[in-house]
Amino acid sequence: MITQASPTPDLKFAFGGARVMITGGLGFIGSTLAARLVKLGSEVTLVDSLAPTSGANLHNIAPIQDRLRVEMIDVRDVPKLGGLLPGCDYLFNLAGQTGHLESMADPITDLDVNCRAQLALLESCRMVNPGVIVVFASTRQVYGKPDYLPVDEKHPTRPPDVNGVNKLAGDLYHILYHNVYGIRTTVLRLTNTYGPRMRIKDARQTFIGIWLRRVLEGQPFEVWGGEQRRDFTYVDDAVDALLLAAARPNAKGRIFNLGGDEALTLSELGDLLVSANGGGRFVVRSFPPERQRIDIGDYVADDNLFRGTTGWRPAVGIREGLTRSLTYFREHLAHYV
Amino acid sequence: MITQASPTPDLKFAFGGARVMITGGLGFIGSTLAARLVKLGSEVTLVDSLAPTSGANLHNIAPIQDRLRVEMIDVRDVPKLGGLLPGCDYLFNLAGQTGHLESMADPITDLDVNCRAQLALLESCRMVNPGVIVVFASTRQVYGKPDYLPVDEKHPTRPPDVNGVNKLAGDLYHILYHNVYGIRTTVLRLTNTYGPRMRIKDARQTFIGIWLRRVLEGQPFEVWGGEQRRDFTYVDDAVDALLLAAARPNAKGRIFNLGGDEALTLSELGDLLVSANGGGRFVVRSFPPERQRIDIGDYVADDNLFRGTTGWRPAVGIREGLTRSLTYFREHLAHYV
Repeated sequence: MITQASPTPDLKFAFGGARVMITGGLGFIGSTLAARLVKLGSEVTLVDSLAPTSGANLHNIAPIQDRLRVEMIDVRDVPKLGGLLPGCDYLFNLAGQTGHLESMADPITDLDVNCRAQLALLESCRMVNPGVIVVFASTRQVYGKPDYLPVDEKHPTRPPDVNGVNKLAGDLYHILYHNVYGIRTTVLRLTNTYGPRMRIKDARQTFIGIWLRRVLEGQPFEVWGGEQRRDFTYVDDAVDALLLAAARPNAKGRIFNLGGDEALTLSELGDLLVSANGGGRFVVRSFPPERQRIDIGDYVADDNLFRGTTGWRPAVGIREGLTRSLTYFREHLAHYV
Repeated sequence: MITQASPTPDLKFAFGGARVMITGGLGFIGSTLAARLVKLGSEVTLVDSLAPTSGANLHNIAPIQDRLRVEMIDVRDVPKLGGLLPGCDYLFNLAGQTGHLESMADPITDLDVNCRAQLALLESCRMVNPGVIVVFASTRQVYGKPDYLPVDEKHPTRPPDVNGVNKLAGDLYHILYHNVYGIRTTVLRLTNTYGPRMRIKDARQTFIGIWLRRVLEGQPFEVWGGEQRRDFTYVDDAVDALLLAAARPNAKGRIFNLGGDEALTLSELGDLLVSANGGGRFVVRSFPPERQRIDIGDYVADDNLFRGTTGWRPAVGIREGLTRSLTYFREHLAHYV
């Protein structure tokens, strides 16, 4: 039994009338966060470069496009980005390369986006708006292949790919700018986040994206391996977590894992998706070698530290989340494929 | 009682006739390594940009300058650097920004030198010379303020400054390129390395540099704090360690701490220096605030993993090392101030 614990009245207090900037704001999580903030009464500025390999999609903000501002800026263009910082109350730092294989194929671009731009943005905060509250979206990838499950924040960090190294550096810059300069930063290490508005064109935004597409198109989807256990966060729950991380003073200068309600093997998840869709099928395949080399095996987050600190609880279970995702994409499929 | 354990005949076997590239080769450790390699019969190429804030000094290689090749290349100029890689048997990756305060004042330059250039260089190795053996000089700074002493390689990494974050990313790239691509890399996390040829103009290459200068100029030197315990590696021992890391197959794909023989408080070290010099004095001062914010307190390395893996032992104790340093700089002072 899952209950909604998100304290909406408090969030209205924190975010009503607040000026909020979201980098990667046209993406999956960014646009869902934007919709929520618009509802809470924030003045929202989205920054995005609409990079073709990212989750950015103008359709994501179609229902709210007149109620926020969109700046087409690459996060690497820090002088331009820095110009938007003065007066900002909150900065949600969601822009980033997320591809693991891409980070191996083009490591320097991954570094420029995930390290260099983040460090430069923090420098801008320090110089022009040290009072801003910053939340950085990081990834479980920084831990690498777990020594134990569930993985808490004390687990050693041994990133298995360039993306993981660069995101880890991003985490550490954020904590450093808190410890040395007092900037109120929080780092959330996300696991598989899924839901409406995600990229489903391909597997770039977790494998769930391409599964959704295939099942909706009546095609079999591929499950690689199948026996790995993973955990999943529905996007509205991830958005709650980002807002709580920003709103709660006791979350500052800290790194938190974010997990979900239930861990499943990929085959179990495949079965659930087929059942939520009322039909479909998948084939289990072995890993392609270039993916095998950087795969982390089982991963389940221990997110008790974040729950205890902020009161966050996931409100949407995996069956419900898959159903909502299928409903959304059935209606909007043409905009996402 | 300290005994010389360095297996010179084996090193001759490994490095005689080998083609060796040293980035940061005009610096303190790089030039000492170069002199040793020339003696072992290697064909040595030094790469250096002679950056004014670095330890680079042409006088460092005066006695061997006709027996090696020097390329004035900034390590950030990877296309040029990559052009020298084919045919290289060993690459000692010693180029880097080392300043902690500098990394806070100009974090992006620190990132470009310590992360971006390292990642690009590893990419070049992968593409044009995946058989090269690489040793990367890292720093104890990646650990931050220790939870326990002595600090082993399992200690959590919590860098207290931008330099520490960037060097940590450098470590992880090197391990990654071993794990994913099979490039034979080793990371050595150095503590205070000291000895002849170090930068003594100022405190940029540890505080010991400026102490040596002051005491030789008959001036009092400043000891900040004084009660912190630190450990020290004499440069010839550090060079032994670099060579053993490169030569020993069982050191590949691994990160090792390097320490010294004896840990001392800074005041104790100050007393030893005065005594080795046969005179002089120091004043104990409190930390400047910008330094206090990133200071790590006591640090002592547990380097048993490296000793056990390679047979390395420090051969030069701190008294002897200070005496040798004073002797060198007394003779060459004009070239270093």
